[in-house]
Amino acid sequence: MGKLIIDKLYERVEERGVVCLGLDTDASYIPQHILSGKSLDEAIFQFNKEIIDATLDVVACYKVQIAYYEALGLAGLIAYKNTLQYLREKDAIIIADIKRGDIAATASQYAKAHFTGDFEADFITLSPYMGMDSIEPYMPYMESGKKGVFVLVRTSNKGAEDFENLDIEGGKKLYNEVADKITEAGQTVKGRYGYTAIGGVIGCTHVEEGKEIRNRYSNMFFLIPGYGAQGGTAKDVALYLKNGNGGVVNSSRGILLAYKKENKELEYAECARNEAINMRDAIRAAVKAM
Amino acid sequence: MGKLIIDKLYERVEERGVVCLGLDTDASYIPQHILSGKSLDEAIFQFNKEIIDATLDVVACYKVQIAYYEALGLAGLIAYKNTLQYLREKDAIIIADIKRGDIAATASQYAKAHFTGDFEADFITLSPYMGMDSIEPYMPYMESGKKGVFVLVRTSNKGAEDFENLDIEGGKKLYNEVADKITEAGQTVKGRYGYTAIGGVIGCTHVEEGKEIRNRYSNMFFLIPGYGAQGGTAKDVALYLKNGNGGVVNSSRGILLAYKKENKELEYAECARNEAINMRDAIRAAVKAM
Repeated sequence: MGKLIIDKLYERVEERGVVCLGLDTDASYIPQHILSGKSLDEAIFQFNKEIIDATLDVVACYKVQIAYYEALGLAGLIAYKNTLQYLREKDAIIIADIKRGDIAATASQYAKAHFTGDFEADFITLSPYMGMDSIEPYMPYMESGKKGVFVLVRTSNKGAEDFENLDIEGGKKLYNEVADKITEAGQTVKGRYGYTAIGGVIGCTHVEEGKEIRNRYSNMFFLIPGYGAQGGTAKDVALYLKNGNGGVVNSSRGILLAYKKENKELEYAECARNEAINMRDAIRAAVKAM
Repeated sequence: MGKLIIDKLYERVEERGVVCLGLDTDASYIPQHILSGKSLDEAIFQFNKEIIDATLDVVACYKVQIAYYEALGLAGLIAYKNTLQYLREKDAIIIADIKRGDIAATASQYAKAHFTGDFEADFITLSPYMGMDSIEPYMPYMESGKKGVFVLVRTSNKGAEDFENLDIEGGKKLYNEVADKITEAGQTVKGRYGYTAIGGVIGCTHVEEGKEIRNRYSNMFFLIPGYGAQGGTAKDVALYLKNGNGGVVNSSRGILLAYKKENKELEYAECARNEAINMRDAIRAAVKAM
């Protein structure tokens, strides 16, 4: 198989570091000078565009959380479409954080929705609750080499204890069962660096599991939430990486709102860039110190 | 607590029967005379509108599967918005089948997206994988009385065996753990007929479980997929109801495409009405025969 999108992501991490910049752009994040004289969708797009321009060479990829755009109805989805289109023009890697989870014909519709057309992304996030037939309809897109998914496995939130972490008969956790099944399904879409196009969402807030989960799922590329606001440190994150690769680490508000700490509204994009560089370098240093 | 939306749904079932009409409108379902001379979003809306007009008094509610609309990008979401708006004007009960599953601030954005504004529905479907903090952000809307949710519990697809049906330590199935937790959470939003605003998606294809699941979750209103195409019969469905209420039974293609069986393109809406009536009456008869 030729170069898969997961290989491209791996190479981006080598070149630009592990930061995944989350464009969870709430209207309240946008400085006044960007808002004024524009419709809300224009302002959101302008904000995102300047953040993207300022960070393109220092982040691996962008994760766009569709909920923030859906919340604004059609206007929000225009901003979503324009943001994705701009990212594609810049050859940035896009993870659409949509956490869809449905089966059969419906899943095929979601695949069409988010792998083609107005809302085309490189990766999407998926929820596995309904079973493997909620993952399979995306396989043809992965087999083309062009697309990948990140399946929810072990998330960073408190509620991850409710179901994901339950002990199932036979000694595994539910999240292990999910991870095992997607690892198996991913074997037909494995790239040149050993990672499959079916990645996993693995939060970095359960550090006692970090090393074990990294070793056990060595073919799985991780999308890692939980850094910063949820308590994950650079040292924690390092446990979930392999030589500083094998995953990307999301930060949204920490980067988008960096300007507020310094009261520098006008330079919000530069502040985001500096914050992304600091995060990248802190994780690099933690990986080296392991 | 006053009349909740779940009470209104219960009363609709009493008045109009248990059919939930699924508006999973694929472009290929639309007869030529509706398509011609219109943009796709106009044609979809026109098709839906005529179906709604023809069925309003014989179905309990409408389930709109957003994936089919997302697949068409912005144009599809215009049709989605117009369909929901028309349903609201007709005082029809809307279940937005979105199966979102996310936490905290993101879940609040989804709540805003689908309980207010362009895409406002009465109920939405949710995926519980990430835990109860993926349900909690919707509680304020439920506590207002105006909104409800249906959480994925035990779905009708084959993959439901992969995770939902796993045995967890202590003797329960995963889906029991989900059902128990949402039952508990729903106690603060229980309506006058004994059902809570947190319903469950319970497929009717696992008939050996039907009576047990109905008895065990007596406060849970069921959204029941699996009828028709997936093999569920009226007799199967009856097991999941209480005196013919306590749930709604979804049919999408079976109703929308009824006209194809009779080759009656021009009378597609009337064919849908007849099919909905037949389904309603077959289930009523099966309930009586129990």
